[in-house]
Amino acid sequence: MASLTSSTSCHSLTMPKVAQFKIGLCQLSVTPDKTTNLSRARNSIEIAAKQGASLVVLPEMWNCPYSEDYFAKLAEDFNDEDGSPSYFMLSEVASCLGITIVGGSMPELKDGRLYNTCCVFGPDGKLKAKHRKLHMFDANIPGDILYKESDTFTAGDNPTIVETDMGRIGIGICHDIRFPELAMLYRTRGANLICYPGAFNMSTGKMLWELEQRARQLYVASCSPSRDSVGSYTIWGHSTLVGPFGEVIATSGHEETIVIAEIDYSALQCRREGLPLENQRRGDIYQFVDIEEQRP
Amino acid sequence: MASLTSSTSCHSLTMPKVAQFKIGLCQLSVTPDKTTNLSRARNSIEIAAKQGASLVVLPEMWNCPYSEDYFAKLAEDFNDEDGSPSYFMLSEVASCLGITIVGGSMPELKDGRLYNTCCVFGPDGKLKAKHRKLHMFDANIPGDILYKESDTFTAGDNPTIVETDMGRIGIGICHDIRFPELAMLYRTRGANLICYPGAFNMSTGKMLWELEQRARQLYVASCSPSRDSVGSYTIWGHSTLVGPFGEVIATSGHEETIVIAEIDYSALQCRREGLPLENQRRGDIYQFVDIEEQRP
Repeated sequence: MASLTSSTSCHSLTMPKVAQFKIGLCQLSVTPDKTTNLSRARNSIEIAAKQGASLVVLPEMWNCPYSEDYFAKLAEDFNDEDGSPSYFMLSEVASCLGITIVGGSMPELKDGRLYNTCCVFGPDGKLKAKHRKLHMFDANIPGDILYKESDTFTAGDNPTIVETDMGRIGIGICHDIRFPELAMLYRTRGANLICYPGAFNMSTGKMLWELEQRARQLYVASCSPSRDSVGSYTIWGHSTLVGPFGEVIATSGHEETIVIAEIDYSALQCRREGLPLENQRRGDIYQFVDIEEQRP
Repeated sequence: MASLTSSTSCHSLTMPKVAQFKIGLCQLSVTPDKTTNLSRARNSIEIAAKQGASLVVLPEMWNCPYSEDYFAKLAEDFNDEDGSPSYFMLSEVASCLGITIVGGSMPELKDGRLYNTCCVFGPDGKLKAKHRKLHMFDANIPGDILYKESDTFTAGDNPTIVETDMGRIGIGICHDIRFPELAMLYRTRGANLICYPGAFNMSTGKMLWELEQRARQLYVASCSPSRDSVGSYTIWGHSTLVGPFGEVIATSGHEETIVIAEIDYSALQCRREGLPLENQRRGDIYQFVDIEEQRP
């Protein structure tokens, strides 16, 4: 089993250049009109930056209602400058404000396929990473929700971890949060923070949204559209920042709002030193394998 | 990577003989006097059975205060009939009442070593499984808790899953609950329920006790000593039953009490059919390995 041992050890925790900073979670109300969504998002990002946020997170599907009726219509091919106003607005506003933006998610059209995609931009406006949602939300819970995301979207094939001035950030989109394995993978790759843009519905929102963030053993930021957003179901809201002890540092209601909260990565160090779960795992009984890291 | 593929698939969920039954969680007040503890435990088990419980769970260290001063003094060698009154009481009461008992945990003395051990007895009074706590609680959180369980106890080396009339039950003790990997291992081995006897303290109790139970995606029962128990720290209490959607089915305060609640495994089936997380995992990106299952 020698080839597996890397999986239970942990990349040593690297403290980023900026270990203490403000994060802004822009809980946006999404309309059927893309121009309106763009201008609201831009305005919200600017307010967050003005309030000191150097890292801003947007919701899942912030530029397009979460609805079959709009995905294809409002999707963008990010390589097409004229056909991708959302992508280029994010890039432009990031560089203009000198901040890092985890750009929620947008419907991406690529080679005839639709992806649910998060773009991360650095303070120079350059694309730092692109995460395509990995786990499709295919659910059929009688009396609650019937939805097959995989009918519309293609799942991505790669986990996304991005090196920023504000730490090593793992990205997951909505249903990705239900898989502790993805968080483990990011944790073993030394993530300081995971950002989950998401649009949970009312029932799973109430039951699981906060829970799944609190169970991850590192910083977790989530950002949701507000409940009054247009779409095919009612959205839970409650964008939240959680610390490494599972504590809710800041959260919101369901209305359109901006959550501004402070991240201090020394708390991660403190958690790891005080309660070194990483070293206490039993690699002789179970192991977690990051497939990409196993490749020669 | 072919040799790893078994880890992401799931044993098919087997419905046990009894798929709907009552569970009793005996939240006991623990004293320095073992005879008192035994008589309280026996009384509590009898009441739980009278109230219809066919599966009864006891707390971590129900027969001995959670304290350095008592572990060695009250420990039992389970092979020594005269020197092991707690063990034989559990066996006797299980057979007498015709119920299954997940016997919390007791300090076990074996070959000069101390273990924090859970014994499971069937309705015939026979020992069905013995789980030695796998993850030692070694923590040094300034201003909160300084404790090194591994100074006193030796960790066990095997996960424990036990086939009972009331389902396939995985066992974990207290700090074992902080490792989602152990729950994953039980889940992939087809567990219906995980029982965690535990004695969390006040701070981790408030932050993490319920959270860790709710994040496991199957039935979870926890059982704690009550807060007025004697010991070296103050115990959180709050014995709880959680369902597969992360919902709290029944819980308690911190006082000595019995939680009686109904388990209906059809809810597991329902969760798996409605939201098949098991099939949605991305074995091409991450894999979970149950080391024992990998052995030839």
